Amino acid sequence: MTMNTRVLLASRPTGWVEEANFRIERTALVQPRGGELLVRNHFLSLDPYMRGRMSDSKSYAASVQIGDVMTGGTVGEVVESHHPRFTAGDRVVGNLGWQAYAISTGEGLQKVDAQIPLSAYLGCVGMPGATAWVGLLEHCQPRAGETVLVSAATGAVGSVVGQLAKLQGCRTVGIAGGAAKCEHAVRDLGFDACVDYKAGQLHEDLKRALPTGADCYFENVGGVVMDTVLRHLNPFSRIALCGLIADYNLTEAYGLRMIRSLLVNRVRLQGFIVTDRPDLYARALSRLGQLVQEGRLTYRETIAEGLEQAPKAFIGMLKGENLGKQLVKLI
Amino acid sequence: MTMNTRVLLASRPTGWVEEANFRIERTALVQPRGGELLVRNHFLSLDPYMRGRMSDSKSYAASVQIGDVMTGGTVGEVVESHHPRFTAGDRVVGNLGWQAYAISTGEGLQKVDAQIPLSAYLGCVGMPGATAWVGLLEHCQPRAGETVLVSAATGAVGSVVGQLAKLQGCRTVGIAGGAAKCEHAVRDLGFDACVDYKAGQLHEDLKRALPTGADCYFENVGGVVMDTVLRHLNPFSRIALCGLIADYNLTEAYGLRMIRSLLVNRVRLQGFIVTDRPDLYARALSRLGQLVQEGRLTYRETIAEGLEQAPKAFIGMLKGENLGKQLVKLI
Repeated sequence: MTMNTRVLLASRPTGWVEEANFRIERTALVQPRGGELLVRNHFLSLDPYMRGRMSDSKSYAASVQIGDVMTGGTVGEVVESHHPRFTAGDRVVGNLGWQAYAISTGEGLQKVDAQIPLSAYLGCVGMPGATAWVGLLEHCQPRAGETVLVSAATGAVGSVVGQLAKLQGCRTVGIAGGAAKCEHAVRDLGFDACVDYKAGQLHEDLKRALPTGADCYFENVGGVVMDTVLRHLNPFSRIALCGLIADYNLTEAYGLRMIRSLLVNRVRLQGFIVTDRPDLYARALSRLGQLVQEGRLTYRETIAEGLEQAPKAFIGMLKGENLGKQLVKLI
Repeated sequence: MTMNTRVLLASRPTGWVEEANFRIERTALVQPRGGELLVRNHFLSLDPYMRGRMSDSKSYAASVQIGDVMTGGTVGEVVESHHPRFTAGDRVVGNLGWQAYAISTGEGLQKVDAQIPLSAYLGCVGMPGATAWVGLLEHCQPRAGETVLVSAATGAVGSVVGQLAKLQGCRTVGIAGGAAKCEHAVRDLGFDACVDYKAGQLHEDLKRALPTGADCYFENVGGVVMDTVLRHLNPFSRIALCGLIADYNLTEAYGLRMIRSLLVNRVRLQGFIVTDRPDLYARALSRLGQLVQEGRLTYRETIAEGLEQAPKAFIGMLKGENLGKQLVKLI
């Protein structure tokens, strides 16, 4: 009998996520029925938004319930299909959760072609890539010659933002944690400059990296990083508010003091969630896939081996220990 | 010899403005030369933005220099003109500063008609009215049936916002300081509800006043009021960030904790200054003037008598002691 391994939400975290908030379970594999298909997941995506799903505070999406399989994006291969749209051997991307195998009705499942490595559909040719696309092009609307600032610049989203902004003819400045990430941002991702927020002099370093200020800010982080960036915004600048990872594990949120900058600089700030824009999603992925194939969009991955490592890797990702897209390899 | 009375900036405030930050000066009246005109000011406008001009921190407009006449909007009458566009007796609105008489080159000076009381050109048919117009209609973009929330709801700007939103078919909720202002908001300005932030239970009171949340928020205040309002925003709501009066006299700004609401509710926040939109200004004033004449837009004024009272009245206005538009009557 084939067994399935699944990671369940065992308890809700207070402050920092701990491995004890998860439970790993092995159960007998359920067989697909009429209209269903069985998928073996090859990679699981780990993303900051999952921290929100572990909490029961009101958000844009429902919480994962205690005892349920953790939600998450996956790529894998169809093992058995009783569904007219899929056949065994199809490679598929979807949201099948933190588990080795999954039964699906086909809803939200997309077939992917073989031109691009499967894992990329969880990164720059997937939800994080589309997030970068929507936030940068729809909400920041950078013009050639403007300066685009990105926090978490070497992460799955930030790394795409920087490269897309460069393709738009912008000057790009990243913010990342540590010298190694900053070096990667400039050398591999093509950022014009990158500031290490852990170096302890963020305001001074931003001043140097942004001699003419920032026209666009793509925010993944929040907290003191955001507060400091607000001091470097130009008049009529735009902020795409994509994430606030610095706050997700605090029991009391950071108090942002530089709100006045939003007023005196007439800033437009737009909070956004990529799934609100299905109208842009397919086009974004198609264009991002093309850029990868043309070698104009590069990406890094940090890969944890085996589903058992997922909780630890997830916590590490929340702490910024990964470089690029954090994945879990399941086979 | 006719004397002029002027109020100069004597020193920059640290924290709260004090009367000692101003100096009242009497000087001989200068005569207008070719191309110039002499205006006797009838009313001086006192507005929160003036606090910013007293400071030397970077803003959207230049600071008033120590020893200079305080900047400010005025309405008055032309006494003597050597300017082709003006004749003695013309009633004019402009920015002639905190002084009884002013020499002008005509720049930024507009003639006004006699249909509306002169003082209204400093209030709902002037800069504050245009501010309400631009912030509400351009940035909040309320749709009929939506709920519009306004802070400083009985002030020069907020009172117009509420009435315009009502004319748009919205439900309107105000926030004001004290029971008397709240009563005025509902009884005279037509707000559907008004919450007294001084009553000590703002969150609970907002919950009651906003059973279906707020779709638009017109922000004049900032600080703990804004932080509390962020908990009551609906998905896809819009904030017009017009002022942050709660912060203007603090040496350290309030730390806003509820930024996460901007993300999960996909809020659009737009900082704005009315003078950035000259394209809308004339149309707004023309329409606001029409509404006043039709009796569909009402306003209140708090009038201090004599220029010597301006510093005290200004400080009172910053503390919210006025009802409606704060003016100084000069003759």
